[in-house]
Amino acid sequence: MAALPVSPLAPAGFPVLPAIKGVRFAAAAAGVKYKDRNDVMLAVMEPGTSVAGVFTRSATRSANVLDCQDKLGRAADGPAAILVNSGNSNAFTGHFGQTSVAEICTAVAAETGIDPARVFTASTGVIGEPLPHERITAKVADLNSALDAGALEAAAGAIMTTDTFAKGSAAEVEIGGRTVSIAGIAKGSGMIAPDMATMLVYIFTDAKVAQDALQAELSAICDRTFNCITVDSDTSTSDSLMLCATGASGVDASGNAEFSAALEKVMLDLAHQVVRDGEGATKFVEIQVTGAASDKDAKVHGLAIANSPLVKTAIAGEDPNWGRVVMAIGKSGAAADRDLLTISFGDVLVAEKGWVAPSYKEEQGAAVMKEQEITVKVDLGLGVGTATVWTCDLTHQYITINADYRS
Amino acid sequence: MAALPVSPLAPAGFPVLPAIKGVRFAAAAAGVKYKDRNDVMLAVMEPGTSVAGVFTRSATRSANVLDCQDKLGRAADGPAAILVNSGNSNAFTGHFGQTSVAEICTAVAAETGIDPARVFTASTGVIGEPLPHERITAKVADLNSALDAGALEAAAGAIMTTDTFAKGSAAEVEIGGRTVSIAGIAKGSGMIAPDMATMLVYIFTDAKVAQDALQAELSAICDRTFNCITVDSDTSTSDSLMLCATGASGVDASGNAEFSAALEKVMLDLAHQVVRDGEGATKFVEIQVTGAASDKDAKVHGLAIANSPLVKTAIAGEDPNWGRVVMAIGKSGAAADRDLLTISFGDVLVAEKGWVAPSYKEEQGAAVMKEQEITVKVDLGLGVGTATVWTCDLTHQYITINADYRS
Repeated sequence: MAALPVSPLAPAGFPVLPAIKGVRFAAAAAGVKYKDRNDVMLAVMEPGTSVAGVFTRSATRSANVLDCQDKLGRAADGPAAILVNSGNSNAFTGHFGQTSVAEICTAVAAETGIDPARVFTASTGVIGEPLPHERITAKVADLNSALDAGALEAAAGAIMTTDTFAKGSAAEVEIGGRTVSIAGIAKGSGMIAPDMATMLVYIFTDAKVAQDALQAELSAICDRTFNCITVDSDTSTSDSLMLCATGASGVDASGNAEFSAALEKVMLDLAHQVVRDGEGATKFVEIQVTGAASDKDAKVHGLAIANSPLVKTAIAGEDPNWGRVVMAIGKSGAAADRDLLTISFGDVLVAEKGWVAPSYKEEQGAAVMKEQEITVKVDLGLGVGTATVWTCDLTHQYITINADYRS
Repeated sequence: MAALPVSPLAPAGFPVLPAIKGVRFAAAAAGVKYKDRNDVMLAVMEPGTSVAGVFTRSATRSANVLDCQDKLGRAADGPAAILVNSGNSNAFTGHFGQTSVAEICTAVAAETGIDPARVFTASTGVIGEPLPHERITAKVADLNSALDAGALEAAAGAIMTTDTFAKGSAAEVEIGGRTVSIAGIAKGSGMIAPDMATMLVYIFTDAKVAQDALQAELSAICDRTFNCITVDSDTSTSDSLMLCATGASGVDASGNAEFSAALEKVMLDLAHQVVRDGEGATKFVEIQVTGAASDKDAKVHGLAIANSPLVKTAIAGEDPNWGRVVMAIGKSGAAADRDLLTISFGDVLVAEKGWVAPSYKEEQGAAVMKEQEITVKVDLGLGVGTATVWTCDLTHQYITINADYRS
């Protein structure tokens, strides 16, 4: 498959990421599948690091995900490591997949001296093919000796599959006059033929946050960020989001509101970058739902709109087709009353009281749809529930990437 | 929008439909939106006709659907009528929509002498524009005087929007040495810019079946036929399925198994024709799910596979991408165990025991995917739940129809 052009929605460039005290990175070319590019990254965290994670809910999730979930469930201290490879997802590879995970964890543990129960992995790429883990384990010594606090950008590049740009984000917070840093990388939702898109996200901070608090924080913010984006409604077998707090800044950020806000900013930025790299995307779409019977209902409506092929193709065609938004709300299963709905495209009121707004002119809606970033606002008129979700349009390029190219 | 080419999956021609005793049809050109073609149909049933219906569950359903549901809920006898127009869906037209329905029902009642509470309507076409109901009511006298038992094919043509072929199906059953006939027509899921696809189905029989029994039969069979098809997971505001039993054959078919089987055959045939006219469809896909924890779980898995954009684009690309089937099963939310899954494409065993089958060769799967009709078989290995669902592939033409053309 030929290299895809960089998404028109990509940021201007990769951001400058601060070094995070207590964690070092390395990337290497192991030749898992791709030639002449880095495809393995290793992160090593100092003792005292808390590690939290959120993973795909897929019933057919990969051996790596199952292993990470098992390890996170056990309280543990000491140093920790994360090894990620691209090029092969190690998903649906039967018992061989578990062996590959064990071999990689054993190799990392042997080289770094870290308890294998604190070594986490992820794999992304082609599925159903045995992971040539020996190519990865052969590189662990090199990776370990190359560890560098400044190598997070290289790590971001190594976990890409057919992402069209590397994704990073960072924030700094002052707590009690001292600075705490947060930096994260992500991959997704580029396509790797013949595979499904996978989202991998790794975030690091030198703040000190206890394990349970870190997990609670990550899960809560994930619900408002990564769980509010969709490209095509399909869910990978490998999706993984991990947050590591090394504590090396010496600053305890547990329960600190400014830290939470900074973490959410980084997570939202990375989530948006994943949407901006959605397969074939030409429009970045924010769907703001208000007035729903509950926040949960608002999210159900928002995702129904965001996942509707008819809404997404209308946006691709720059068609202010509010009827399809009405349709998506109607089918979502959450409470709605046709005659209480209000729909706007950007700041243009389109429909209200069960019909097109008297003030609405088609050319106003058409002008909004020509923008590269589009906001769809829906008020249900029922209650105080709100949600915001993000998606992209559905274009010929999506079909081209997923149907026309063969592995 | 230029006329679409006839679907490559269309039947060879419109079937010969038997006349159904006790019901007559007429079609006319009212100029609701289209020029020079029939766009209104009227069906008039004799006294003693039982009428059953199943409608969209959309929370934003049309005024016509709300009116039909209200009328079906009230027991009633006497003659009955159905009037359907194409070209305008009368959906999301506020209180004006209710007025349009009332005006049409009043006009039909005045002309035919039928109680307006026994006059049912449906509208399909553009949404959000007021229905010019006066164009329809102006044709009611002509329609009434043209009623003919043999005009069901003309009725099938009148309810088309951008369907690429008219859809009809029929069956005859011998009960106690006498013949009972069933004939039905359908429209869907062609697109009418700038609108959503709508499915309308009308089935007539001269069997005698009590109202409650007829409704129960229709709902049960609908769950195995029309509720098992999907083109793009979007749900119309206007979907309507009605079954009218005139009793004019004098044969009571209540509880008769052969009648039920014949009715299911007609409904399944019409449901398949709707899929065969799916927007941009080039492949007709049957998904057979067995071994699920329950029938309900089996249907959830089947629809998750059938609605997955990644599965549908793989089929469009003739790619035997079983990994995407695994993905769809994993995300469906119903019970699954990766290591107990068995997946076949046609008669080719592809994956089992959590991995690709040792006997599988990619060229075998590729050969199956080149067919125009493809069967995907999934066994969960968990229980005895089964379901079969039908869908089509997702192609460039779907994007072209829904994004590139503007209203």
